[in-house]
Amino acid sequence: MDSVLIIGAGAAGSVTAQKCAMNRDVFKKVHLASRRLESCEKVAARCVSPIEISQVDADNVDETVALIERVKPDLVINMALPYQDLPIMDACLKTGVHYMDTANYEPRDVAKFEYSWQWAYHDRYAERGILGVLGCGFDPGVSNIFCAYAQEHLFDTIETIDIIDCNDGSHGKSFATNFNPEINLREVTQRGKYWKNGEWIDIDPLSISTMIDYPEVGPRKSYLIYHEEEESLVRNIKGLKQIRFWMTFSENYIKHLDVLQSVGMTRIDPVMYKGTPVIPMEFLKELLPPPSSLGENYTGRTSIGCVIDGTKDGKRKTVLIYNVCDHAESYKETGAQAVSYTTGVPPVVGAIQMFQGAWTGNGVLNVEQLPSKPFLDELAKQGLPWHVKEITPDDQAELFAVKS
Amino acid sequence: MDSVLIIGAGAAGSVTAQKCAMNRDVFKKVHLASRRLESCEKVAARCVSPIEISQVDADNVDETVALIERVKPDLVINMALPYQDLPIMDACLKTGVHYMDTANYEPRDVAKFEYSWQWAYHDRYAERGILGVLGCGFDPGVSNIFCAYAQEHLFDTIETIDIIDCNDGSHGKSFATNFNPEINLREVTQRGKYWKNGEWIDIDPLSISTMIDYPEVGPRKSYLIYHEEEESLVRNIKGLKQIRFWMTFSENYIKHLDVLQSVGMTRIDPVMYKGTPVIPMEFLKELLPPPSSLGENYTGRTSIGCVIDGTKDGKRKTVLIYNVCDHAESYKETGAQAVSYTTGVPPVVGAIQMFQGAWTGNGVLNVEQLPSKPFLDELAKQGLPWHVKEITPDDQAELFAVKS
Repeated sequence: MDSVLIIGAGAAGSVTAQKCAMNRDVFKKVHLASRRLESCEKVAARCVSPIEISQVDADNVDETVALIERVKPDLVINMALPYQDLPIMDACLKTGVHYMDTANYEPRDVAKFEYSWQWAYHDRYAERGILGVLGCGFDPGVSNIFCAYAQEHLFDTIETIDIIDCNDGSHGKSFATNFNPEINLREVTQRGKYWKNGEWIDIDPLSISTMIDYPEVGPRKSYLIYHEEEESLVRNIKGLKQIRFWMTFSENYIKHLDVLQSVGMTRIDPVMYKGTPVIPMEFLKELLPPPSSLGENYTGRTSIGCVIDGTKDGKRKTVLIYNVCDHAESYKETGAQAVSYTTGVPPVVGAIQMFQGAWTGNGVLNVEQLPSKPFLDELAKQGLPWHVKEITPDDQAELFAVKS
Repeated sequence: MDSVLIIGAGAAGSVTAQKCAMNRDVFKKVHLASRRLESCEKVAARCVSPIEISQVDADNVDETVALIERVKPDLVINMALPYQDLPIMDACLKTGVHYMDTANYEPRDVAKFEYSWQWAYHDRYAERGILGVLGCGFDPGVSNIFCAYAQEHLFDTIETIDIIDCNDGSHGKSFATNFNPEINLREVTQRGKYWKNGEWIDIDPLSISTMIDYPEVGPRKSYLIYHEEEESLVRNIKGLKQIRFWMTFSENYIKHLDVLQSVGMTRIDPVMYKGTPVIPMEFLKELLPPPSSLGENYTGRTSIGCVIDGTKDGKRKTVLIYNVCDHAESYKETGAQAVSYTTGVPPVVGAIQMFQGAWTGNGVLNVEQLPSKPFLDELAKQGLPWHVKEITPDDQAELFAVKS
């Protein structure tokens, strides 16, 4: 295995392609395809070694099949929109090529984040003898693998997991989202939920918040939201009693979100405008700065990790596993800020696991079902160093105090 | 003169039509026309006496001319959008029929509020022997007439005028504008200015605010904005040294405005959406509740007036002239809240002045150039009682303290 096809040339896809081009010992052939060939050309110009490019409409299974048959990759890394997960999975199934993505499928017309659609491919992928790796970005992705690593190496039993996600960066714009605005706002404006004692507990959007002390950043107000990796971790981390996901949002972000929601600009149903149906959320995307424009002058860092509480050798143990990534350094290396960087590097690390034989198997798997140690070793080499720190619950007193 | 044609069946136009239908001694024939006949039908159903209705596209001069030739009104009251002032003035000029409106013309593509375009019709109207009355709503309109009344009856010299406009009502929606959102937001988001010692002083939008003690409402934070009646009052109030316009906005309104501006939703230039040009401000209008939907359950009052400072018989004198209008009472009478009511009643009072002979003349005039006393006497009878109160500058200490 030595040939990879990356579909999607947005900010994260650009990082993935550039990182593959930096690892020619593993990736003999790197092919990047996107709806707009111009986007691919820009990425190719940034790559340290030559890559091939193509135009493709990833909504169209036949087009993607034709591309795969022409390029003959061993693996397709899907860095397109979540809407396109299923058509790309279909194309891989038809051509018998391995599949990997960084975000779960969602339908365009309903903000519904769940793995059911993709897990349904498991048997067909297994029969075809191919592997589909789901959610191999940062979170989902590295966050899941931190949990798997904790389960395998640090704990006898894990009781609670809090995934904590802080972007302590500043892009200097009055309002912008760090990745596709449509996907970002759909995620944040949905109802929140978390899992406790075997059931999902629903909450109003952004109705639970607390201060979390982020490594290398400090205390930041964080909101409980639902995030897709919780669904698979609940299945794959044995004996888990509670999992929650927390994300920082600035007051300014919350203010914008409040207003955009209250006036209906985050709606995903069409509104008639002079005889043309316009989807407010999609129109808003046209108004906001594209995430790829945020890299320049972006300062600060992301600090993302897992606070895991459980037992080891009969004693209570609490661990923080995390990565801190600097916006300006990411930009200097790849022309993309840290949110895109932390999303774009992990699938390259995942692909290296597959190409080097550490990740094998058939069917559709989430990343925590695959070996964690070799992935994390490689992750640090590829620009995302990670740290394990034993803490006491008092170190995150406010987090542990949040009543459900 | 006994026949009136009203063009525009929005919330304020509905009030105008209903009030005309209540005054059949003056208006023998009342005809209402609008782009959508359905809107006219709804208004007609509310009228206490039968009115005629027609469909018309007021952007189209020929259509309006044909309508005027068929209806043969003595006066056209323009309650349509400001964009349509000039085509309707053209139609009146062609047919030799008097004209009246409540807001000055503005082009669709530039937020520019000034009388130049309409004043340019003066000579042609004079030659044709017809009268065009500009700005006969509440503000502009009654506010100008309060000033004219003060000049004629209360002062020897007027030095400063502060027009103060408070909507202390609550419509229970998270965000809505009280009249056409497009016009309202264009007015508020433009740069502010006021007039002092012979020149206009430009300020950043909403950058000057102060507390004003509104009659029957109390102290409310108010913002200095530019409002069109200042342009004509500067010409028509002799010896004036300063005029400013103040309006209350809630914190919630300002928050919405901030965000909508920062994301570009108040832009009036087209943005491409899937190959279709969409004007953000116009699209926003489709999302917000229509002003006509705000009447029900609207509570509270408007309190609008003029604080006028000058001399009488050699002594300093400060006067507050104002009207207070209750949203729920307005709604009960006309199905429209107080902002629409206070805009829709004054043109009926102005029309009565013309039909009864108190307002005569040829050419294009602003309302303060016409007799104030008979207008104000009738205004009180038609549902908008007004009050004159002598105050001391200390009663509006914060207002008078605002440094320029």
